[in-house]
Amino acid sequence: MKKKHAITPTREEDFPLWYQEVVKEADLAEHSPVRGCMVIKPWGYGIWENIHRILDQKIKESGHSNVYFPLFIPVSYFEKEAQHIAGFAKECAVVTHHRLESKEGKLIPAAPLEEPLIVRPTSEMIVGDSFSRWVESYRDLPLKINQWANIVRWEMRTRPFLRTTEFLWQEGHTVHASEKEAQEHALFILELYKNFCRDDLAMPVLVGKKTEGEKFPGAVTTYALEAMMGDKKALQAGTSHFLGQNFAKACNIRFTDEKGSLEYGWTTSWGVTTRLIGALVMMHGDDDGLVLPPKIAPKHLVIMPIIRNLEDQKNILQFCHTLKDLVKEEKFQGRNIEIVIDDRDKRGGEKKWQWIKKGIPLWLEIGQRELDEKKGQLFRRDLLGEKGTFIDLFAIKEEMIKALNDMQKKLLHHAEKFLHDNICSIENRDDFYRFFQSEKTSGFAKGFYVEDPVTEEMIKNDLNVTVRSIPLEQNSQEGRCIFSKRPSKMQAIFAKAY
Amino acid sequence: MKKKHAITPTREEDFPLWYQEVVKEADLAEHSPVRGCMVIKPWGYGIWENIHRILDQKIKESGHSNVYFPLFIPVSYFEKEAQHIAGFAKECAVVTHHRLESKEGKLIPAAPLEEPLIVRPTSEMIVGDSFSRWVESYRDLPLKINQWANIVRWEMRTRPFLRTTEFLWQEGHTVHASEKEAQEHALFILELYKNFCRDDLAMPVLVGKKTEGEKFPGAVTTYALEAMMGDKKALQAGTSHFLGQNFAKACNIRFTDEKGSLEYGWTTSWGVTTRLIGALVMMHGDDDGLVLPPKIAPKHLVIMPIIRNLEDQKNILQFCHTLKDLVKEEKFQGRNIEIVIDDRDKRGGEKKWQWIKKGIPLWLEIGQRELDEKKGQLFRRDLLGEKGTFIDLFAIKEEMIKALNDMQKKLLHHAEKFLHDNICSIENRDDFYRFFQSEKTSGFAKGFYVEDPVTEEMIKNDLNVTVRSIPLEQNSQEGRCIFSKRPSKMQAIFAKAY
Repeated sequence: MKKKHAITPTREEDFPLWYQEVVKEADLAEHSPVRGCMVIKPWGYGIWENIHRILDQKIKESGHSNVYFPLFIPVSYFEKEAQHIAGFAKECAVVTHHRLESKEGKLIPAAPLEEPLIVRPTSEMIVGDSFSRWVESYRDLPLKINQWANIVRWEMRTRPFLRTTEFLWQEGHTVHASEKEAQEHALFILELYKNFCRDDLAMPVLVGKKTEGEKFPGAVTTYALEAMMGDKKALQAGTSHFLGQNFAKACNIRFTDEKGSLEYGWTTSWGVTTRLIGALVMMHGDDDGLVLPPKIAPKHLVIMPIIRNLEDQKNILQFCHTLKDLVKEEKFQGRNIEIVIDDRDKRGGEKKWQWIKKGIPLWLEIGQRELDEKKGQLFRRDLLGEKGTFIDLFAIKEEMIKALNDMQKKLLHHAEKFLHDNICSIENRDDFYRFFQSEKTSGFAKGFYVEDPVTEEMIKNDLNVTVRSIPLEQNSQEGRCIFSKRPSKMQAIFAKAY
Repeated sequence: MKKKHAITPTREEDFPLWYQEVVKEADLAEHSPVRGCMVIKPWGYGIWENIHRILDQKIKESGHSNVYFPLFIPVSYFEKEAQHIAGFAKECAVVTHHRLESKEGKLIPAAPLEEPLIVRPTSEMIVGDSFSRWVESYRDLPLKINQWANIVRWEMRTRPFLRTTEFLWQEGHTVHASEKEAQEHALFILELYKNFCRDDLAMPVLVGKKTEGEKFPGAVTTYALEAMMGDKKALQAGTSHFLGQNFAKACNIRFTDEKGSLEYGWTTSWGVTTRLIGALVMMHGDDDGLVLPPKIAPKHLVIMPIIRNLEDQKNILQFCHTLKDLVKEEKFQGRNIEIVIDDRDKRGGEKKWQWIKKGIPLWLEIGQRELDEKKGQLFRRDLLGEKGTFIDLFAIKEEMIKALNDMQKKLLHHAEKFLHDNICSIENRDDFYRFFQSEKTSGFAKGFYVEDPVTEEMIKNDLNVTVRSIPLEQNSQEGRCIFSKRPSKMQAIFAKAY
């Protein structure tokens, strides 16, 4: 007998379509009339607000100040760094006019700008312009800022959260007095992101360096986080760039050092985006919809009153509110516990499944019996199908915190095991091709590698596989490159990716 | 003898230039290479973050959910509401291309869009498009959402915070089942804004209706908050619009009511912007710079170590940190008390004046004597020039909270008195002209009025004066219109404005 699921198709049947359905059924976002742009709905935006809140605190605690830079960047500013502009020119939204005029009943652009403006695809050049004024002496360094902003990159194929024309992100920019300090800062942020993903999103990530072909346009080194999605494909979850002096030279960021000589600064930039929401869906989601780590779930628990006859209604509803009041002002992991009472005039089953699909961590059904006995069953989203835990309802606070902590931990363990189980060591080219030629994605391949653009082109064309990451921690073993058989001490991670 | 001030010119000498200087000296923002856009620096953005945090909570507590809508709006969407497009067409940034290509060494826009996109000057039309899908039945109503976003309006004359091509704001949008409910909601938000301005920004505002000529393009009624700046000019600090069914009809927002018939919804929209930061400068600032209400100051207190010889340095710095630790995790008005220790290698006087110009509410200087006696002088920004209060330094927490509360209250009282003292009742046209023809702005004029576009045109041209507000609370008196002498029960507020 076929098991029934709330999401059609299942992950097994069609993962990309399953993803689209979860985004829709969990009410995270919808397509907008603007090509490739999405409307982020309350439940999706609630997740982003939690990501924002937690990450913002970590960024501030490590000495960065928030700022806001203009949305528009003059084309001439963009041209100053050759690789940078080459990397972004193909996907820039360009503002060319500043007025609309009616002509034969149609509104057409009027008042052309002297110089076209790019809608920021990233802010290095406009931030660099200010940095060139803000930095004078070594005493002004390090300079560490961050902004939360919207970004536009004209993508040809878009998917909600994963790749959209407009997305939201956080972008940090720093200037340092030495190469070493800037390098270390780029790695410090990589570690900060990694811990955030693990501790808050229950998302294990591999951290490493990108190859030359995959790095940020204008960077010396790009570090990235790679996560494994439910279909065993890789998703880049964040990046941290060591920019060397490239942007300092392009933007003229110079400082007088302690000896009095004028030097270019060393810069970094780094960001994570609303893509993380897509990653959460594809890492923790199941065939019944979204599963959210409690730390970033917009709500922690829904109470659904079960009303069989109207006489009981008042007492039951009142009891629901009493329960909600019991956790008022109480915190789970630094945030107020958020309970919602769903007393909408809808069938109980329909309501329950709406919440399941949304990935609410916990739920309680409160009817006459629960009111009489002051006991109820606490259900957990990650243990769907299992019986709930019978709890003393007046201990709701303690029971919730216990369940939420356990769920947060279990989701991480589950994801860590999945990642670990699906990294395969590969030694030669034939095995590599066999591994990636199977119909279903097989996971990540790990093996010795000597960087070579021709190889990367080949596996991209043949298998749609890329070097995802050159792990920062390499053991001291030596082996032979999967492809060239040349000796190498460096192992790399290969995968199909989003 | 002329008194010396930190800001040149003084407010008296040249208010607009004084404003620009305070924005610069308080390090709030700087001009960017993009015409009319600004870079909001850490101290300015810190104020915005506090505005955001406090207002966001109030908006959520009143049942609104945060969302995010696309930055771009297709021109065809904008055309649907005739007055709306007429109001915004002249100041729209228009995206016409989605690529840059190199031609003869220059980057030029390539890949024209089939339909140009407007960078949102406000989001009614794109929100309305989603609302038309989200609203089906009276059960879906009221629908109440809010977003924090950036906005672009191509202004010809710009001034930091007050009028910029790009600004940040919060925009709320709601749909209701009845005219009455939507009307009431627009007024509810007006009240929410008013209380926020008074209680958090120490900013008294007059609330009222706009005349036909001053209302939002497409609105039935625009309500607004008007504040009096230090030069006695008016500044519109926020608006709340009752949109009737205009946008529901343009966007096809319809619902089935309880009787089963299909009706258009009734909508509202409302917002406040980074302009509030400019308002704070011009309301509370003095000739020594910014003065910030403690509730929205990015930091509450700066401790400046006074080190006369290097032997003492370690002990004094340690003591500063001890003091800071004494208030760690302590709250003022729901927010952690924020203390900064300024141990930069700079002259004490220079440091102190930097903080004064930034409007830090409180400061302490800690030297050997303070360390020995465990007593110090707590200085208050609003009482500059007066002696500080001698406090027991181990009671720093209580003393700070007392001082901050008192300062918050005093700033409001001072502003309320200033507003009250500078509203003049005017009965006839001659007095009206005399009042506004004086060289310095004289304040707000209040008097009976019968709405008339010709009069409004006249006083605008002759005096640069507009009807700022038709107060919601009118006494039952009857009088004669200042201009037409026709009988009227309605009084209006007139002023020169930003």
